[in-house]
Amino acid sequence: MNPPVSGRSLAVPASPIRGLIPLAERALKAGKKVHFLNIGQPDVPTPKEYFEAVRSFSEPVLAYGGSHGNPALVGALLRVYREELGVSLLPEHVLVTAGGSEALWFTVMVLCDPEDELIVPEPFYANYAAVCAGAGVRIVPVTTRTEDGYHLPPSDPAAAVESKITPRTKGILLSHPGNPTGTVFTREEVKLLADVAVRSGLFLIADEVYRDFVYDGRPFTSFCSLEEAKEHVVVIDSVSKRYSACGARIGFIVSRNRSVMEQAMKFAQSRGCTPTLEQVGAAALYNVPASFLEGVRSEYQARRDTLCRAMETIPGVTLRKPEGAFYLSARIPVEDTQAFAVWMMEEFDLDGETVLFAPLEGFYATPGLGRDEIRLCTALEKETLARAAEILRAGLEAYRYRKGGSA
Amino acid sequence: MNPPVSGRSLAVPASPIRGLIPLAERALKAGKKVHFLNIGQPDVPTPKEYFEAVRSFSEPVLAYGGSHGNPALVGALLRVYREELGVSLLPEHVLVTAGGSEALWFTVMVLCDPEDELIVPEPFYANYAAVCAGAGVRIVPVTTRTEDGYHLPPSDPAAAVESKITPRTKGILLSHPGNPTGTVFTREEVKLLADVAVRSGLFLIADEVYRDFVYDGRPFTSFCSLEEAKEHVVVIDSVSKRYSACGARIGFIVSRNRSVMEQAMKFAQSRGCTPTLEQVGAAALYNVPASFLEGVRSEYQARRDTLCRAMETIPGVTLRKPEGAFYLSARIPVEDTQAFAVWMMEEFDLDGETVLFAPLEGFYATPGLGRDEIRLCTALEKETLARAAEILRAGLEAYRYRKGGSA
Repeated sequence: MNPPVSGRSLAVPASPIRGLIPLAERALKAGKKVHFLNIGQPDVPTPKEYFEAVRSFSEPVLAYGGSHGNPALVGALLRVYREELGVSLLPEHVLVTAGGSEALWFTVMVLCDPEDELIVPEPFYANYAAVCAGAGVRIVPVTTRTEDGYHLPPSDPAAAVESKITPRTKGILLSHPGNPTGTVFTREEVKLLADVAVRSGLFLIADEVYRDFVYDGRPFTSFCSLEEAKEHVVVIDSVSKRYSACGARIGFIVSRNRSVMEQAMKFAQSRGCTPTLEQVGAAALYNVPASFLEGVRSEYQARRDTLCRAMETIPGVTLRKPEGAFYLSARIPVEDTQAFAVWMMEEFDLDGETVLFAPLEGFYATPGLGRDEIRLCTALEKETLARAAEILRAGLEAYRYRKGGSA
Repeated sequence: MNPPVSGRSLAVPASPIRGLIPLAERALKAGKKVHFLNIGQPDVPTPKEYFEAVRSFSEPVLAYGGSHGNPALVGALLRVYREELGVSLLPEHVLVTAGGSEALWFTVMVLCDPEDELIVPEPFYANYAAVCAGAGVRIVPVTTRTEDGYHLPPSDPAAAVESKITPRTKGILLSHPGNPTGTVFTREEVKLLADVAVRSGLFLIADEVYRDFVYDGRPFTSFCSLEEAKEHVVVIDSVSKRYSACGARIGFIVSRNRSVMEQAMKFAQSRGCTPTLEQVGAAALYNVPASFLEGVRSEYQARRDTLCRAMETIPGVTLRKPEGAFYLSARIPVEDTQAFAVWMMEEFDLDGETVLFAPLEGFYATPGLGRDEIRLCTALEKETLARAAEILRAGLEAYRYRKGGSA
């Protein structure tokens, strides 16, 4: 008799971002060129400082580091928080993790017990669903709409959140700027959410891995800059997006709540440390001149504009220009974007090329929502994005007239 | 009102291996030299192939890898399993993880729901307690004794395990060779445990990260070589110990159970991937000539001999020479080795030097056991080990005569 796997693992959804990759690999093998707009993988070169630091490593033994993280890397992050966000932190307010993903895993495990609840504006980063399911935590969604630019329901945003609080609610989880929406909360919205957390004794988990990418001169307010909520806020941070270094897998938990950091440290000890060389490289990244980030930000803004303009001209597509991050969520004229994605990989090409996107259904907790929406990464070269939009337009047209007929 | 952290995080014990490091850091600051025998950090140089491969990486973007792992690294592991263990595996039987630690986390989450039980011979690797507590899984210990060389109770080993099975038992978890015991199961013991698993429909999680270090010409039987139990066995593997590359944080889940691997893949997707550069380096490690491992094995055997000989001459110390891995567990003549460890950091030195070891209490699940035992790492240079034993001898003598008096 083969033993059964756990219920919690069965409850974890497959990634809507990565789940289609095997199909894309088959398309590649069949000779198609695939444009990968499904994943937030920028094509901006990683700063050379990373590779130089790694190459200069000269210890004879690649040894374990401390569970807390490389002191140079922690120090660099503290400096950035002080200089860019005006927040004074101590080393014990920071824990180095294996990417923002591990930071999120540890945070959810530290804040929530099985059957606890987190309130999450939807659509949300699909991995939240995986992490919460794995941890046995229920996501209680607050639905936001394309029409509102995916901001909180404007009529009464506080009530929209507070009406979801139950005795099992442990906190509010959100990405800011939003993934997949690109929404950047105003200072008023940030304060409003923090007030709800303080008033109701909740945690506020703010995934701010995209905070360097806010466009059109908008201001950005980090949740961790609010003194009045400092015991409530846990920030998830990462080098991946900031420095085009997704493969480094270096992230951070940042919180001024001492209990949270003490408990997170036990989980950190249970996995030893994050990789030594990647931490050496990441510490060097934080010395990269500010002009790098400024350049990348204006480049990403232009890329966003390119893709938005191209997508807006496709019949039946609805979108709001994202305010930050590097994704575009859009409604497209098909009933089931998951089926359309499979078809794009298996049956369609435009002169040998096709496009992989992330169907948005897996970014919602409310059943049925997002079936006609997709997420596209905007952080690729403008020519690639323009070509991808062209392929999508042709795909949508062909899909409408394929055998079988209706969309 | 500050929100409270989760019950599961409070249940996670602090690491008995890493928890004393802050005290050691204070001792270092106070000018003492500290010999770190608490952690399994060998001082054998990492093969140069690792650093050469990392230095040769020439992609401009440090991009996400696949969640499954770098194909070259997976291929290298398959070759090693075929050539060294005679086991034919497919790529989908292997998942690259962030060290053996992440492999263990995923495995426990995939096999067990909260309140499930794992049977674990004690003393066991202390992190098992942390991972199981975090996952809400109860460790049901089978106590082994120094007198039996920490093998299963010899009178009726099958009954010792089977008597612990309840309706909540999902599997048996063990390290093989043993950490902290160095025990290497005979082929009969391996088969016996596999038979119990098959007969009772249990998983068998075999942490074989030390399998390259088996001494005195003993044979080693990998749990994954048993065809009859192939649906039951999950092996945890790692480059850390094999290649003296603990800081690389590259490990593996190896299992021929398709459901286990499918579920583990969802957890792997939830964290993106393991670091790109470290995987490039690790793949190169598996091309290091076999002579490296042979050399390290005989060196570690000699180091073990050095430490055992030195420790055996200390009055009141009881030990059995470990058969594998690179730890020595020993009973020492103090009542509470945790308190003794603190004292060694804070109040003792021999000519300015002291020794950090891991108190063994945290390696037992049965309350009260292990309080007079310690674990020492044997994978350091012979001179270091001899000196550490000398310091320990002096420390034990001074401790006996310190203010207060009794041991």
